[in-house]
Amino acid sequence: MENIRVIVQGLGAMGSGMAKMLLDKEGFDLVGVVVRRPKMAGKDIGEVLGREQLGVKISNDITTEIKEQKPDLVLQASTSFTKDAFPKIKEVIEQGVNVISIAEEMAYPHVRETELAKQMDEIAKDNGVTVLGTGVNPGFVLDTLILTLTGGCIDVDSIKASRVNDLSPFGESVMKTQGVGTTVEQFNKGLKEGSIVGHVGFPESINMVADALGLELDSVEETREPIISETYRETEHVKVEPGMVAGCNHIGKGIKDGKEVIVLEHPQQIHPHKEGIDTGDYITINGTPGVNMSISPEIPGGVGTIATAVNMIPHVIEASSGVVSMKDLPIPRAIMGDIRKIMGR
Amino acid sequence: MENIRVIVQGLGAMGSGMAKMLLDKEGFDLVGVVVRRPKMAGKDIGEVLGREQLGVKISNDITTEIKEQKPDLVLQASTSFTKDAFPKIKEVIEQGVNVISIAEEMAYPHVRETELAKQMDEIAKDNGVTVLGTGVNPGFVLDTLILTLTGGCIDVDSIKASRVNDLSPFGESVMKTQGVGTTVEQFNKGLKEGSIVGHVGFPESINMVADALGLELDSVEETREPIISETYRETEHVKVEPGMVAGCNHIGKGIKDGKEVIVLEHPQQIHPHKEGIDTGDYITINGTPGVNMSISPEIPGGVGTIATAVNMIPHVIEASSGVVSMKDLPIPRAIMGDIRKIMGR
Repeated sequence: MENIRVIVQGLGAMGSGMAKMLLDKEGFDLVGVVVRRPKMAGKDIGEVLGREQLGVKISNDITTEIKEQKPDLVLQASTSFTKDAFPKIKEVIEQGVNVISIAEEMAYPHVRETELAKQMDEIAKDNGVTVLGTGVNPGFVLDTLILTLTGGCIDVDSIKASRVNDLSPFGESVMKTQGVGTTVEQFNKGLKEGSIVGHVGFPESINMVADALGLELDSVEETREPIISETYRETEHVKVEPGMVAGCNHIGKGIKDGKEVIVLEHPQQIHPHKEGIDTGDYITINGTPGVNMSISPEIPGGVGTIATAVNMIPHVIEASSGVVSMKDLPIPRAIMGDIRKIMGR
Repeated sequence: MENIRVIVQGLGAMGSGMAKMLLDKEGFDLVGVVVRRPKMAGKDIGEVLGREQLGVKISNDITTEIKEQKPDLVLQASTSFTKDAFPKIKEVIEQGVNVISIAEEMAYPHVRETELAKQMDEIAKDNGVTVLGTGVNPGFVLDTLILTLTGGCIDVDSIKASRVNDLSPFGESVMKTQGVGTTVEQFNKGLKEGSIVGHVGFPESINMVADALGLELDSVEETREPIISETYRETEHVKVEPGMVAGCNHIGKGIKDGKEVIVLEHPQQIHPHKEGIDTGDYITINGTPGVNMSISPEIPGGVGTIATAVNMIPHVIEASSGVVSMKDLPIPRAIMGDIRKIMGR
């Protein structure tokens, strides 16, 4: 029985978490870690992760690593955008290796980058490998889980889902992209200029759900609104006075025949509990039967993304070649035993 | 583009519901209905279902129907047990046609009928067709949905889930198999004699979840206890005085190293609201992260089973051959458009 050989590319919070998760699972070999920063190269992966020495060194060169280590799959954790992910994915799949990317747009890449997605699909098929984009959202809560819940429905009239989370644990860059600590004027200016972005993933989730159900949408619309605080809230990185912005309420809508058939909300702010708001993942399906689901608190973003990406490794290895999405693969699941036994390798 | 051709076998509440659902969906042709009762033969299916004349007659002979109608799949809704379902499934798959069965034991048939499941798998593979057992439970709430929720988990320590429903709408036979309206003595006697059975499906759900996660269980245990009423409850079919039995609390446990790693509860009773109990589907995953999900009210049993079975038709047609279970197939989903387009036929 051969171990599943994995290289992790990118060693931020997500990459490190995925690397550690792989070290803790039976039947996986973390055979390489590739990062951009030259000064990291040559360091022992285990030591960098705060574990025992592994005898495997960090590298800056994915091509050589793949040649030497012959991985089954590369986990990529760097960008949010398909156009940035594309060259990195291409480099890997051209060498005949599967990829899982946590770039949000890669969850359903043809939506924003039709041409790049097509090229990727062709290269993947030519090389007999599979490319999947996933993560907690997009990839899990607001698409995979919604679809699964419709599985018990005869009819679906409309879907409304809301992912309410707490940004307090996050660092300065997240505060900036969500507009936390700005005035309303600064928030609106930031939106216009593109420095405040909200959530990346609504067009991906909405189109994935619609395509899987067979709803032919006329359009997908997005709005971003400031969450104006009524209380004083602060974190290590930001202070929000009453009247200032505590976060961004990002809403995505899938429209068909003038009707909002899919509405996804993702209000992201610091300390929502201060105003009596419970964090959670909430999905309501209006249909036959109706389904009214809540997960409270929400599935946490960081851990959820790490887990979703690693848990999909066996599914991606066994999938047919090309660019796939969560809707194409078997139901996700945790890995609690030797992955070689589970896969029957 | 060719329609998906389906025959429904069995025309009780489930079979009728599936037949109607198929009539209402684009891209499916209900090409036959096969029942046991001779007096039904020759009647128009549409008329029997309370719809327009369809020009398709009910038959008693599945073999001839398959020869004449060349269906892609047969939906079977008759028994709960694999040993009863086996000859009916065999008849269909030997003719090279896929089967979805709602027999509870068929959700994971090798658990109770190892030899029959093996034979079925071989016949299906020899004939290039797929056999799936599914339904709302087993098949959806206490296995597929649990597994999906673990998909965002790095680790799972234990799983507890509870499906709390209301038996009030059901008929006399369900009252009997759940012991509703008995005294405690009668209940315990019924359990011993096998007339009171509780839920059929725990070994299936528990083993499916454990196998998919890679938990190697030491044993699966089941207990059935009377739900003793403190209030007067009644339905059209049964009266329950205080002190009498309002239903059966059936519990299944998956045990590993002496620890209850999977605990599934299914208390089934009439009018649970009378004692302040909210019906619902509740899943708690103790792990990293923990997940605390509730669906309230529960996904209804009848409609949910009808929907789950029909919704899996495209997945079964596209699956590789053999006996499969929900854990092997892509995530379930409703069918809201022309199934030919969704499948790209």
